[in-house]
Amino acid sequence: MTPASSSEFDQGIALRPDGEAGWYRGELGEGWQIGGGINGGFLLAAAANALRQELPQHPDPLSISGYYLSASTPGPYTVRTEVVRKGNSLSNATAVLYQQDEHGQQVERLRVLASYTDLAALDAEVGTAAEPPAMPPREQCIGAEHAPPQFVEQAALLRRFDLRLDPACVGWALGQPSGNGRIQGWFRLADDREPDPLALLLVADALPPVTFDLGRPGWAPTIELTVHLRALPAAGWLRVSHATRNLAGGYFEEDCEIWDEAGRLVAQSRQLARTPRAK
Amino acid sequence: MTPASSSEFDQGIALRPDGEAGWYRGELGEGWQIGGGINGGFLLAAAANALRQELPQHPDPLSISGYYLSASTPGPYTVRTEVVRKGNSLSNATAVLYQQDEHGQQVERLRVLASYTDLAALDAEVGTAAEPPAMPPREQCIGAEHAPPQFVEQAALLRRFDLRLDPACVGWALGQPSGNGRIQGWFRLADDREPDPLALLLVADALPPVTFDLGRPGWAPTIELTVHLRALPAAGWLRVSHATRNLAGGYFEEDCEIWDEAGRLVAQSRQLARTPRAK
Repeated sequence: MTPASSSEFDQGIALRPDGEAGWYRGELGEGWQIGGGINGGFLLAAAANALRQELPQHPDPLSISGYYLSASTPGPYTVRTEVVRKGNSLSNATAVLYQQDEHGQQVERLRVLASYTDLAALDAEVGTAAEPPAMPPREQCIGAEHAPPQFVEQAALLRRFDLRLDPACVGWALGQPSGNGRIQGWFRLADDREPDPLALLLVADALPPVTFDLGRPGWAPTIELTVHLRALPAAGWLRVSHATRNLAGGYFEEDCEIWDEAGRLVAQSRQLARTPRAK
Repeated sequence: MTPASSSEFDQGIALRPDGEAGWYRGELGEGWQIGGGINGGFLLAAAANALRQELPQHPDPLSISGYYLSASTPGPYTVRTEVVRKGNSLSNATAVLYQQDEHGQQVERLRVLASYTDLAALDAEVGTAAEPPAMPPREQCIGAEHAPPQFVEQAALLRRFDLRLDPACVGWALGQPSGNGRIQGWFRLADDREPDPLALLLVADALPPVTFDLGRPGWAPTIELTVHLRALPAAGWLRVSHATRNLAGGYFEEDCEIWDEAGRLVAQSRQLARTPRAK
């Protein structure tokens, strides 16, 4: 169902029809694990790929919301899709991603609700006041090769990425978090697979939790992640920033912006996640 | 199903069971119209009220996403709810709000996906870096009584509110929009009904479209609205700010913050809406 491709990402989200109309199956690879589960952005991309199969006229998510119901694990999964409405410029659809638990019970991992469109057909007007995040050139940024080994061990995911973090946002790796609640850097898939709307869903959840920069080194389970795809990304490197302002009640929001090499704000996302316990 | 109340809002979102388990019906009042349709925040609150009936242990939305499928009109509606998961601290559920079209066909107006919790039981920790919006005291702000009549005509909704806009954000009413993409003000329901989580869903979409401040006076249909409820609001006035940064491709995001009288950031929301045509 997915264009033949040698890219790790395309192979990772590849699907097969699963008999009944609207059902698909795939396999979550160990390489997309983070802190013991499968990365939430990757899972959203897998579900979004199933929806794309059902909406040939509107292949791109414009807005997509994922609610995470249980921790997904490497292994097979199935996706059930439902097309709710096919419109002229937008279509709406839902998806449910399931895995079998250790008792053979089908368990929901992720529920998705989305509006799909054809991003290539959007109005060309751009009247943005947003500025790309200011960060040093890539050669002055910090790659995963400098990350603490115990961190990389928990994040097989990092080997899929060429991620170069702004040195101003990596104090946490040395036990000196800035306290600003901001992590940003340059991003590219390690195998140089170029960005597209599905890859941007992965990128929206690809950086370390912004709570690392607040001295909370634990993993932060995502409750909800909504991504707005605002333009087709140009080929090349992406600039990604994650920031939080309101850590309260045991939860925090993480706002993400993704800028492409042409200097266009191509995606905006916000997630609500559970705050890791303070050390 | 809704506590007996003389408040316009509680009466507006009041529901009755509709036979089958999980189904409810209600009536959309003309008083909640804006630009010809029913206000999107009000519609989300009506659906959220149906979900609340199904989740007595977790009565409050923590995160709720609404996708708007067609313009709703005054008159009867039905809501179908589905509880997806009941957990210890969170439950997940979906809702679909329907109306009959002029041919008697059942049409979907709104699809909702949400995580519910008990906001009163949240961890008390607050470590926020967010600051309430700076705005003048209420007596220096501008009430709807000063709004252009042709504007109020299209917005019966405004009569339900005691809304006092920051004078710095109302230049658009005089044909002199600031161009900042920001509208903020003080909010209270006109009948003094105190804020609660369902009312905050209405408030998240209650101000004029932020595009007014960019010289785009038309109505801006909401594609998707996600609200994060971060705390139970204190009684009294709310401070509400709407801002946009990225108007592109025929769409714009509208970020909303709602602060309560105790100075707590009680809700954060973002919507993706269609940009009104330039004059």
